[in-house]
Amino acid sequence: MTYTVAVSGASGYAGGEILRLLAGHPDIEIRTVTAHSNAGQPLIQHQPHLRSLAGLTLQDTTPEILAGHDIVFLALPHGQSGQYTDALGSTPLVIDAGADHRLTSESAWDAFYGGAFHEPWTYGVPELLTGGVKQREHLRGATRIAAPGCNASTVSLSLVPGVAAGVIVADDIVSVLAVGPSGAGKSLKTNLLASEILGSANPYAVGGTHRHIPEIRQALAAASASDDIRISFTPVLVPMSRGILATSSAPIADGVTDAQIREAWESAYADEPFVHLLPEGTFPRTADVLGANTALIGLAIDRAANRVTVVAAVDNLVKGTAGAAIQSMNIALGIPEDRALSINGVAP
Amino acid sequence: MTYTVAVSGASGYAGGEILRLLAGHPDIEIRTVTAHSNAGQPLIQHQPHLRSLAGLTLQDTTPEILAGHDIVFLALPHGQSGQYTDALGSTPLVIDAGADHRLTSESAWDAFYGGAFHEPWTYGVPELLTGGVKQREHLRGATRIAAPGCNASTVSLSLVPGVAAGVIVADDIVSVLAVGPSGAGKSLKTNLLASEILGSANPYAVGGTHRHIPEIRQALAAASASDDIRISFTPVLVPMSRGILATSSAPIADGVTDAQIREAWESAYADEPFVHLLPEGTFPRTADVLGANTALIGLAIDRAANRVTVVAAVDNLVKGTAGAAIQSMNIALGIPEDRALSINGVAP
Amino acid sequence: MTYTVAVSGASGYAGGEILRLLAGHPDIEIRTVTAHSNAGQPLIQHQPHLRSLAGLTLQDTTPEILAGHDIVFLALPHGQSGQYTDALGSTPLVIDAGADHRLTSESAWDAFYGGAFHEPWTYGVPELLTGGVKQREHLRGATRIAAPGCNASTVSLSLVPGVAAGVIVADDIVSVLAVGPSGAGKSLKTNLLASEILGSANPYAVGGTHRHIPEIRQALAAASASDDIRISFTPVLVPMSRGILATSSAPIADGVTDAQIREAWESAYADEPFVHLLPEGTFPRTADVLGANTALIGLAIDRAANRVTVVAAVDNLVKGTAGAAIQSMNIALGIPEDRALSINGVAP
Amino acid sequence: MTYTVAVSGASGYAGGEILRLLAGHPDIEIRTVTAHSNAGQPLIQHQPHLRSLAGLTLQDTTPEILAGHDIVFLALPHGQSGQYTDALGSTPLVIDAGADHRLTSESAWDAFYGGAFHEPWTYGVPELLTGGVKQREHLRGATRIAAPGCNASTVSLSLVPGVAAGVIVADDIVSVLAVGPSGAGKSLKTNLLASEILGSANPYAVGGTHRHIPEIRQALAAASASDDIRISFTPVLVPMSRGILATSSAPIADGVTDAQIREAWESAYADEPFVHLLPEGTFPRTADVLGANTALIGLAIDRAANRVTVVAAVDNLVKGTAGAAIQSMNIALGIPEDRALSINGVAP
Repeated sequence: MTYTVAVSGASGYAGGEILRLLAGHPDIEIRTVTAHSNAGQPLIQHQPHLRSLAGLTLQDTTPEILAGHDIVFLALPHGQSGQYTDALGSTPLVIDAGADHRLTSESAWDAFYGGAFHEPWTYGVPELLTGGVKQREHLRGATRIAAPGCNASTVSLSLVPGVAAGVIVADDIVSVLAVGPSGAGKSLKTNLLASEILGSANPYAVGGTHRHIPEIRQALAAASASDDIRISFTPVLVPMSRGILATSSAPIADGVTDAQIREAWESAYADEPFVHLLPEGTFPRTADVLGANTALIGLAIDRAANRVTVVAAVDNLVKGTAGAAIQSMNIALGIPEDRALSINGVAP
Repeated sequence: MTYTVAVSGASGYAGGEILRLLAGHPDIEIRTVTAHSNAGQPLIQHQPHLRSLAGLTLQDTTPEILAGHDIVFLALPHGQSGQYTDALGSTPLVIDAGADHRLTSESAWDAFYGGAFHEPWTYGVPELLTGGVKQREHLRGATRIAAPGCNASTVSLSLVPGVAAGVIVADDIVSVLAVGPSGAGKSLKTNLLASEILGSANPYAVGGTHRHIPEIRQALAAASASDDIRISFTPVLVPMSRGILATSSAPIADGVTDAQIREAWESAYADEPFVHLLPEGTFPRTADVLGANTALIGLAIDRAANRVTVVAAVDNLVKGTAGAAIQSMNIALGIPEDRALSINGVAP
Repeated sequence: MTYTVAVSGASGYAGGEILRLLAGHPDIEIRTVTAHSNAGQPLIQHQPHLRSLAGLTLQDTTPEILAGHDIVFLALPHGQSGQYTDALGSTPLVIDAGADHRLTSESAWDAFYGGAFHEPWTYGVPELLTGGVKQREHLRGATRIAAPGCNASTVSLSLVPGVAAGVIVADDIVSVLAVGPSGAGKSLKTNLLASEILGSANPYAVGGTHRHIPEIRQALAAASASDDIRISFTPVLVPMSRGILATSSAPIADGVTDAQIREAWESAYADEPFVHLLPEGTFPRTADVLGANTALIGLAIDRAANRVTVVAAVDNLVKGTAGAAIQSMNIALGIPEDRALSINGVAP
Repeated sequence: MTYTVAVSGASGYAGGEILRLLAGHPDIEIRTVTAHSNAGQPLIQHQPHLRSLAGLTLQDTTPEILAGHDIVFLALPHGQSGQYTDALGSTPLVIDAGADHRLTSESAWDAFYGGAFHEPWTYGVPELLTGGVKQREHLRGATRIAAPGCNASTVSLSLVPGVAAGVIVADDIVSVLAVGPSGAGKSLKTNLLASEILGSANPYAVGGTHRHIPEIRQALAAASASDDIRISFTPVLVPMSRGILATSSAPIADGVTDAQIREAWESAYADEPFVHLLPEGTFPRTADVLGANTALIGLAIDRAANRVTVVAAVDNLVKGTAGAAIQSMNIALGIPEDRALSINGVAP
């Protein structure tokens, strides 16, 4: 069967990537694209790379226009989804690429976001272990899905297997991420200008203020026996349009062997189509996942530092956002999980 | 007075940067430039940006050709300096930009480099606290100077104040660095090709194998009451020709206040011309130090993670290598420390 | 039916892109991958982005190993294809991504390449007008296909409609191209190092020496009433891994109207799936075709300069090489021309 | 003597570069920095690379605040200088980095800019031949100087020697420029976002609309026997923060020899400190002039195309703007022309 789809925020980067992937999905009919400030303009003017969708025109983002589809994707700044989700009560499947429905803790929401708290939806990272099962199980038949934060899911995928197996300790995690600016969206801010980013590495949200921190803590807590999760998290903007390279480290649990450590990740991801543990001594590059829904993970055991170092590469717009949304949609609809999603990157 | 200088490795990146800075030094006469494999060719063919040195021709790198100058800079791959230093016994000042004379521990040398061990020279990072005094004091009148490893000095400058003051603990440091490829030199390796690096973030030497680790441990041990120094160190190549952005974190010592923490760095660098602590809440970008001998340091105290996060930006070829060499030379010669060295970067 | 395929030069950039596209082709079984110097190694070691082909091992590039497939792709440096093509006489379809079979003129070959001249094969740019028909007609049922040079096909697609319609004059063309380094292959050359290319624009082959010049002249002559084709051609390496942005200009023919000029390109490309003329006043960016088989063309009529300016954006590895090869293969085999080829780029 | 200086537009890119260069000028005291919208903020907040000027605070840009200095630099968007220049009647030297005082033709101003026309000031490109003498002669003692447009001066320096000597013809020039985004300033526009520019080559102002065209025509006319100057001009944004690589070509005049052609540029620039003709077969890269006031020029004679191709590399913010302004200031004041200006670039 063919599902009709509306995509809001269609002139932005996340919305554009959802459309790029849906354009290759045989079960989907993209019927409606909306963008508040650019309503009335051709989609192609804002997404000139989406040649196959050249016939679409942006409409206003209103509940009325979004209603009446089988599936609605919300790719809006956080705090804006709520007004639509109430009005989309009869829509069979709604997927929010924003943050509004990710957190289960209202106090975490208040501390990092503020504004009205919304109920959590089913979290869209199928490969995470949550309470002993993969999140995939919760996504089957789901009707409301919260796509993950790109940095959050990258770090969570990096560490959950070790935390779940008890081979690393989650109370002193350090993550530093090299990230491309597309994760920050198409906002007109001086620090996102090309002249500011070309040839430079620029940190931001240093010292524990980044909004993806509670999302990581939530995912690690769901996988862990303990809820003492502490993470030092620092993102660094680097001059590449897309990509996240997350370097995360955690203390090695007492008494575990190297083989036990590696086994934790191997068994967690052995059968996963989109999360691959690389062979020992091998580490991923973001170029290898550009355009792909793949998360590549390299693992090093550093006994001198008594830490496991996990390096993960993800395309922030695909596996980090739009790909995660569509993979989750596929699962929810009961169609093949990898439909319209590539595991091969576009490199060099 | 004017000092005559010879620079070996003059066709490489470190050699080129030494020459760029020396070309603006009023007390220096660049008399000789050498490069083993390119001997006989004009320097300008290999360093087309050094227009003021267009008249120089590369000679072979031999002890005879290097001898007879007031100052010799060695910018050679590690393991190659030793053969020259023996023959330069009568040269008043020799500065090695390579690794051969940095380490005091022969076992550390064997573990990370291998090959013949050479005696350590005076380490060329004037701002480091070593045994209660600044390294600057040891550099006055020095005749043999080891310029630092670029990553090593960036991390050491980031953490030594806190370690020396006892406000952070050095046994569980985590450093992740975004680095430009010029630090790897002009070697013809597939992983250094533009197509491999453009648009990608590429980790290397993950898991405790990078050669700058013992150099950092040595600097931190010299500043510390303890010699239990452990560091998880991961460099990531990013698409910028120059620059290091080092994000380092260390556990906060028990019982110290935020004010005490900040005071450690403030007092260490208050009077330093080239190492600047940024105001609270402010963090540096590598663009801000491009071409400059400046190290910019931002400090965050993350009580939730119980860690101090230090972000440092350095131009790997200037403050990381050539600038450190010339700053040390100035000190050794007793001329103004900042001669020929800029604190302003070239941005954007 | 499923066709078996061998790809030589599989560890290089062109070979990798052929594989990336073939991996998504439902009618193709990639049976053999070869690479002379890396034989015996896993393909994934050299193409870490091709996760779906992780099971393949590189074999030596010999006629024996290449023989016995339905289709053979040669992605070898020019001058190397000849030895294989003789031995592949019984292979139903051979496609050369190198230059050996592109030129019809032996004197042009001698002047720009040298070495043994090989007979020309059917040229793999379906959209070009040659002698009044599209090159597509010549490709139907073809058994030996020469994929184009990436710069050459970009310029030819830019200008052939105007030349064929007689609205521009071909005797004083000027083309300047911004190109990414992947077009130069994975060769270990100093000028292709990331440090040399990041943050810089670097011209090469200035003044009429680039090897794609005779290929352009050949395509324009085939479309033209005249064979007085002159072109000033300058490529400039810029810091993007992929992409060609060709800015070409040609004198306006006497007495033609603006409408006639625009009509030439409109009618030539109105029905083409992969070559799109953009609306008046709109010009393409290379990001819009990244990973896509699309050539986007913008046209400006500059009466003050008496020139038509054509700006074309192409992904050098797709529409410029591998995509052209597979599009041509599809036509030759009589399967849908766009199979396994996307018209949507991966942006931003 | 020491001259007091005020710089308006000090929070922008051009203003920042003027300040960077003036900070190293021994005869200058930077007394006042102004920026309309950021008045009251520390300069260092907007120019974090200018460490030596950390004590300065931005004031409002008013005639009163700018008055009373020996020298005023205006680094404002075009159309805004006029209101200040009237009020600065008693200021000994005013240098406008904007466009308001560059054009001598009011009709050209109306066609390309519009708004009030202002009288032309002395044009700040000392090396241009104008009416048989170098523009330098006109700059001696000048009190009102118009710094050039960066693209315009790059193209003019490329072609004026050939036009003045009559070895090339100016009625069919084609120039295509690879340019970094800093030339467009710090404006918040979607097309200047890093995500739009990283990994992409983006043309703009195609087809004869760029505002630097009349400025080039004016410079070429001043050097030429004819005023039939036609130029096809296309700038292409590429992913480097700074730099212009201009590829310009012009028809070879009838009957001139290769030696005569080369001699035109050689004699024009033989004694110039900042404009260098490279040896035959050698072409410049923008990295070679980064941060330098140097224009590097490579010349190819393409008899097959009957065109001379000139490739010029310039740092748009230095020789293209701020360096030109300060070089002109030095000449006007009668101090050494190269004071505070480097000819060596910062590479790699």
